[in-house]
Amino acid sequence: MLSKNTVKFIKSLHQKKFRNLENRFLVEGGKSVLEVINSSFFVETLVATPGFLERNHQILKSFSGQLHEVTQNQLENIGTYQSNKDALVVVEKKKDLPFDPQPNEFLIALDDVKDPGNLGTILRIADWYGISRVLLSPQSAEVYNPKVIQSSMGSFTRVTWSYEPLGEAFLRWNVPVYGAFLEGENVHKMQSLVPGILLMGNESNGISKEIEKFVTKKVNIPGFGETESLNVAVATAILTDNFKRLLDQ
Amino acid sequence: MLSKNTVKFIKSLHQKKFRNLENRFLVEGGKSVLEVINSSFFVETLVATPGFLERNHQILKSFSGQLHEVTQNQLENIGTYQSNKDALVVVEKKKDLPFDPQPNEFLIALDDVKDPGNLGTILRIADWYGISRVLLSPQSAEVYNPKVIQSSMGSFTRVTWSYEPLGEAFLRWNVPVYGAFLEGENVHKMQSLVPGILLMGNESNGISKEIEKFVTKKVNIPGFGETESLNVAVATAILTDNFKRLLDQ
Repeated sequence: MLSKNTVKFIKSLHQKKFRNLENRFLVEGGKSVLEVINSSFFVETLVATPGFLERNHQILKSFSGQLHEVTQNQLENIGTYQSNKDALVVVEKKKDLPFDPQPNEFLIALDDVKDPGNLGTILRIADWYGISRVLLSPQSAEVYNPKVIQSSMGSFTRVTWSYEPLGEAFLRWNVPVYGAFLEGENVHKMQSLVPGILLMGNESNGISKEIEKFVTKKVNIPGFGETESLNVAVATAILTDNFKRLLDQ
Repeated sequence: MLSKNTVKFIKSLHQKKFRNLENRFLVEGGKSVLEVINSSFFVETLVATPGFLERNHQILKSFSGQLHEVTQNQLENIGTYQSNKDALVVVEKKKDLPFDPQPNEFLIALDDVKDPGNLGTILRIADWYGISRVLLSPQSAEVYNPKVIQSSMGSFTRVTWSYEPLGEAFLRWNVPVYGAFLEGENVHKMQSLVPGILLMGNESNGISKEIEKFVTKKVNIPGFGETESLNVAVATAILTDNFKRLLDQ
């Protein structure tokens, strides 16, 4: 059973304003809920269907937060997913601390990537390639947006991020910055790579003028057709894959 | 001005049933509308705001279909986009004819890729890499779905597709079929490639058992982290990029 106040509280977390105010966010769907419970995040409240609780009885034994059993209908009513047969949780946000790269660390920086689906997909790509940190310009999408959490498929529990003006971080770090530009060097022709930062730009405007001056090398994905561009998450994946190939050869 | 019947007709095309019945589909947003008008598709009706008509006066001179001038509000009311300041068009579908590969052609086949956003993104990736044909299993998403058209960003005008049971096509074609599997060969370690088909599987279940037997070589994207999988459009992009690199070296 859920009290009216709990329903109201959970629904308020659909909005960024209340996620900031309450320092909490939502994770929805069975797989992501289990991942966040098994992560270092503090899970305050679990709202789940009887089926989910039964299937995951063993895993949930150690869960010490509040537990509410609800119907699928109730779950879909309080969450953002159209369909959710399993569960959602209320989770405490982590402190967003600035970081510096380790020697030879390869990381990703995003200059105002605005679409939540793109940001979530990029976190999942980073996780696949073992990139543990992502730098986000302050105007980038909010990681705690339910659509970011959904498309990251649990990767937000393994990848760390920090929001910081990119120029400030780049000045402090003084490592190579690789920016994706149409006039850049064909990444298929590169013979080697010094670890550094892969910088990706905004969906419509690319890398901003202000940040372009920190780019130490422009790189390009060779195109063979007539389309002008690739989706930013797709381009991030292709460049990361090429960089990993060059670093591991 | 739009008659009630025209409004009803356009709105009916939001649904697959009526797209099939009427043999028509919708293209929305200024950029995609201009691309389809300049393509070999037959554009029957243009519904546009005064601003769009003014800005594209020269390009639209040759347009000989029906034209309706509407407000942005009216446009958003009849279309599927939340926001559309420009235009939508009603377009005649093309006949979906089975095809056979040319010698040394590299093409993509999708085994039940269901998500419209993924299919549209894959068409855009194909277009980027100059892959002109995509084979789709009959249960794959419908290309004329407004979300596919939207995420393809105009690439549906340049890439051809055919729906056909994959097994039948593979038997007829007798060319290499590269399937993405976790136990496949690391694509970074491959030294060369014979052109053929890149086969990608369903979002949840991968390549079906029935189709797996046509795979002549299993390939894998090297992972370095803990996540189990990549989004299918992202994986298609990475494998296509590696294949193009191997074919063009």
